[in-house]
Amino acid sequence: MSTPPSWRGFASDNYASIHPDVLEAIARANAGHDVSYGDDAVTAQLSDAVKDVFGSRAEVFPVFNGTGANVVALQAMTRRWEAVVCAESAHIHADEGGAPEKMAGLKLWTITTPDGKLTPDLLDTQAWGFGTVHRAQPGAVSITQSTELGTVYTVDEIGALAAHARSLGLRTHIDAVSFGGTKNGLMIGEAVIVLNAESAPGVDFLRKTSMQLASKMRFVSAQLLALLTDDLWLRNASHANAMAALLASRVRGLPGLSITQPVQANAVFAVLPAQVTARLQQRFRHYTWDAATGEVRWMCSWDTTIEDVDAFAAAVATELERG
Amino acid sequence: MSTPPSWRGFASDNYASIHPDVLEAIARANAGHDVSYGDDAVTAQLSDAVKDVFGSRAEVFPVFNGTGANVVALQAMTRRWEAVVCAESAHIHADEGGAPEKMAGLKLWTITTPDGKLTPDLLDTQAWGFGTVHRAQPGAVSITQSTELGTVYTVDEIGALAAHARSLGLRTHIDAVSFGGTKNGLMIGEAVIVLNAESAPGVDFLRKTSMQLASKMRFVSAQLLALLTDDLWLRNASHANAMAALLASRVRGLPGLSITQPVQANAVFAVLPAQVTARLQQRFRHYTWDAATGEVRWMCSWDTTIEDVDAFAAAVATELERG
Amino acid sequence: MSTPPSWRGFASDNYASIHPDVLEAIARANAGHDVSYGDDAVTAQLSDAVKDVFGSRAEVFPVFNGTGANVVALQAMTRRWEAVVCAESAHIHADEGGAPEKMAGLKLWTITTPDGKLTPDLLDTQAWGFGTVHRAQPGAVSITQSTELGTVYTVDEIGALAAHARSLGLRTHIDAVSFGGTKNGLMIGEAVIVLNAESAPGVDFLRKTSMQLASKMRFVSAQLLALLTDDLWLRNASHANAMAALLASRVRGLPGLSITQPVQANAVFAVLPAQVTARLQQRFRHYTWDAATGEVRWMCSWDTTIEDVDAFAAAVATELERG
Amino acid sequence: MSTPPSWRGFASDNYASIHPDVLEAIARANAGHDVSYGDDAVTAQLSDAVKDVFGSRAEVFPVFNGTGANVVALQAMTRRWEAVVCAESAHIHADEGGAPEKMAGLKLWTITTPDGKLTPDLLDTQAWGFGTVHRAQPGAVSITQSTELGTVYTVDEIGALAAHARSLGLRTHIDAVSFGGTKNGLMIGEAVIVLNAESAPGVDFLRKTSMQLASKMRFVSAQLLALLTDDLWLRNASHANAMAALLASRVRGLPGLSITQPVQANAVFAVLPAQVTARLQQRFRHYTWDAATGEVRWMCSWDTTIEDVDAFAAAVATELERG
Repeated sequence: MSTPPSWRGFASDNYASIHPDVLEAIARANAGHDVSYGDDAVTAQLSDAVKDVFGSRAEVFPVFNGTGANVVALQAMTRRWEAVVCAESAHIHADEGGAPEKMAGLKLWTITTPDGKLTPDLLDTQAWGFGTVHRAQPGAVSITQSTELGTVYTVDEIGALAAHARSLGLRTHIDAVSFGGTKNGLMIGEAVIVLNAESAPGVDFLRKTSMQLASKMRFVSAQLLALLTDDLWLRNASHANAMAALLASRVRGLPGLSITQPVQANAVFAVLPAQVTARLQQRFRHYTWDAATGEVRWMCSWDTTIEDVDAFAAAVATELERG
Repeated sequence: MSTPPSWRGFASDNYASIHPDVLEAIARANAGHDVSYGDDAVTAQLSDAVKDVFGSRAEVFPVFNGTGANVVALQAMTRRWEAVVCAESAHIHADEGGAPEKMAGLKLWTITTPDGKLTPDLLDTQAWGFGTVHRAQPGAVSITQSTELGTVYTVDEIGALAAHARSLGLRTHIDAVSFGGTKNGLMIGEAVIVLNAESAPGVDFLRKTSMQLASKMRFVSAQLLALLTDDLWLRNASHANAMAALLASRVRGLPGLSITQPVQANAVFAVLPAQVTARLQQRFRHYTWDAATGEVRWMCSWDTTIEDVDAFAAAVATELERG
Repeated sequence: MSTPPSWRGFASDNYASIHPDVLEAIARANAGHDVSYGDDAVTAQLSDAVKDVFGSRAEVFPVFNGTGANVVALQAMTRRWEAVVCAESAHIHADEGGAPEKMAGLKLWTITTPDGKLTPDLLDTQAWGFGTVHRAQPGAVSITQSTELGTVYTVDEIGALAAHARSLGLRTHIDAVSFGGTKNGLMIGEAVIVLNAESAPGVDFLRKTSMQLASKMRFVSAQLLALLTDDLWLRNASHANAMAALLASRVRGLPGLSITQPVQANAVFAVLPAQVTARLQQRFRHYTWDAATGEVRWMCSWDTTIEDVDAFAAAVATELERG
Repeated sequence: MSTPPSWRGFASDNYASIHPDVLEAIARANAGHDVSYGDDAVTAQLSDAVKDVFGSRAEVFPVFNGTGANVVALQAMTRRWEAVVCAESAHIHADEGGAPEKMAGLKLWTITTPDGKLTPDLLDTQAWGFGTVHRAQPGAVSITQSTELGTVYTVDEIGALAAHARSLGLRTHIDAVSFGGTKNGLMIGEAVIVLNAESAPGVDFLRKTSMQLASKMRFVSAQLLALLTDDLWLRNASHANAMAALLASRVRGLPGLSITQPVQANAVFAVLPAQVTARLQQRFRHYTWDAATGEVRWMCSWDTTIEDVDAFAAAVATELERG
């Protein structure tokens, strides 16, 4: 891509920078020697902070990236012979290079969804065949609160899905949560958070065998701790979501453009003419989601500004008018 | 361990802090948005810097940690059915939680060595059985220039070993190098460096499936670039090695203490009475290597100071006298 | 199932017996000692027989079962980071307990088909994303000449699909064939047949690591040799196919019954009322394919007789009339 | 090997033929159709027979080969992150092509032994590091009653080892037994026998994902049932052991020959001059175990006759005299 790095865009929240509080926390943690592999003071503080937010039985396992967090958590929730049910659009299926299968031997039973979200009824289309050796046994269901399509599960929806999963004997990728950091203002860092350590044994060993154990862990923990401090994670995420809502409101109704998914998180999915998109991409980085339909994805991040949105929305309007 | 983090010690080079040049490079890279997954300007600079040091056909693949670097490199060098030969003391065998076997299905054929170093003759003890399906086929030999025992291969030794390996049809974990960063002053970052991209295809895909692809890669690349700038990597490593040499010289000959391995890198292995070690560990963190023999390991790092060494050497002398 | 073993049915071709020629071949091979693991005289004869049928560069690797044959062949055709494209109804996806993922780390990109058959256009729906590390790289396409739905690829269809696959850089599960035996009159035995040994290296090693190497291989080879002798494989398969065609012709047009797939191999798929099926299953073993639609699958085998078909067709007619 | 198959030898018990009772059982099971995958009448009979021998809570899982039995059993006994402790001479380490690592991700911690047998003290040399994530966690110990070196554990030795393993939290490859068949008179067939189904869950699923589930299982079960009938397994094994003892007694004391291991099962290990071995191998197939020392292995089988032993022992004496 020939776009200079200084041009801000709407390509991905992992194009964003490090939040200043996070960078400062890294610098602060850089005070002399400390014990490696998580037996340090910063990680101990993080552990306390996580219990405050997720409950006193919660345990936190900092890892490097989202794929790592997912593969560690899914291994902890499944037995050797089990499979995982997920949406066909799920990141673990579509975008992780086959890591769940390759690294953990996990078969994914995928479900086509209109909006990236599973429901109890949809779950039933793949959660069957229990006890039949020919069918890879569904052992867990994996969801992300905010889906790949920018939609968001409500608390009630998650509750209903998890309850249905449990009634079928499946664990839910909620018992063990991948808590995102890198896309929410960190430099490098995610966490597997286990709400109840007994329900997911061996996460510490699985993190190591899965090559996700940081030696100088204090610097990952310091970032995560900064994210949990003064609700920075909520503030960052809320801001990104608000920017997406603003962007959607700015462009909704423009002739030649239609928004294709409910805007519930930090993404706007829209269809507009290919030549319009081509011109816009010269000025603001973003990805075409489906070349066949002309659908694009516009991502906002913690550091997207109202000015960014206004400039981009104006360009969209101008380019649509040009046709 | 109850030792306060402010107490400096000789436990591991991953207890050390981030080098100021590296922290500054991270901050400098934090300028607005940039493309993720390695298509950014900083990674492009790193790529050029690596070609300057390792040759024009070299390619660099930043990853998160040493286990990740090793498992990615070993997969790139072996076919599905092949095994890896290494020293019994090798980190990939002894200290990576079984990641090579678990994540890459790699059997390790191990060789007992006096000093952590393989030789052509030692290699022959495991590099055999070619063409026999019952024996996992030796496909690559893995070494680290500086071994787990603090010894270092000379260039001639590596040349002879690699030549012998090649004559047997084995690739050497030199064709693809794990270039260490975290233990040499970085916060988080290692690199797989392939000297000739054709000899190790698929490293980019393997890095992804092995969960070692950083989304905000510019921040890993910036650290590695800082390490290659003005030979910081050599300066850091040389300093750590010099501190180990200094420490060895300070304690060698003390009654009741014997140094057990040649001090060629940044580690000193020594045997001393258990009660002496116990008292020393109250003041300076370090690990007992072999409780049966009383052997301990003292590691120096880029930020070990002469004062650290002097204070520790004095304590060793004092405690030995106390008996 | 309480049905006595003497009741013949239409459940599966692996309910069938051993063909007498095959059993005799086993007994004949049981003459004293012979070398194990395939270095025996019978396997040598089999090797020659396979070259006669599949060409002089063909090599045969006897294995135990179909899942084993598939997993060995797919490993031989893919690199460590690659994935396999197949129909959603494919046996490797639906019925092998997740063995390709679990044992070989292979992600399956599945395609919904009307009749179990892939076409070049359908292949394009999953064979994309080459060079993008986030997408598990399509490396091979897997088909079976006779599909799970009883349909059969014509030679032209296979040719077109393989040519399209090749143009995309994919290997086809034809370069390496799983040659079925157990369902075609053997006791235990399948073969991976590689048409050109250079195109699929390491099959001998992969067979061993995949736990598919028979120690007393002469007894597997003897069965396969019997199958290749006097075209027994073609005669057995043709007979099973003819019995399915006969059964379809007997029941087609009966009120309340519709045949749902072209009858091109040894299976008949039909929809009929659930209570009719329930009564029929008391007398003739067979499986319900889709309980929601009332679809059943009737399989014929090498030892299905015209009398079997007539008796069953008559029962179908009678039970349909009862309603 | 150019030796004609009619020449009987001492190479391996898998060079032997099928016992006539077993072949007859296969033929008898070949009566029309029967249910596949183990829901047949013969497998039900086998299940009862196994409970008679191994206790009422025992469950039997017929599989294809020894590697398959071992890898299935070891998976059932270990959690995802655990490793297996075994002798360096163990078949799973030395002779299975890396299948445990490749197929099940199992690291093997190996122990050098004088005679192929582990003891509680030897076990301690690898069963340590519990709770340390850097060390692949020892989860099970694998032994075979009769070792690769022809020695046999006494019941007391196994009891002591299993008790020590249990005290360390390790399961023993006894809780789940690989019951050998192919080397003891079968054509193709082994069994995983779980003494207490609760202690090894999922064996049925693991057998399927490990590609060890026979579709026409009745023919494997029939063989195993024949082996359990009238103690054929004990009679076959005792005969092979007796022939080895006879052979040892015939050659012990011959000048130039020394027997190197206690002869406790069906193998004789001996050292004799290389040129003597070379001439003997022209007439009687057998393997050189260690070319460096001149050690050979002579295996007896269920169908080794006293005449075979006498002829071979005479040849050994003659050739030794020739020098």
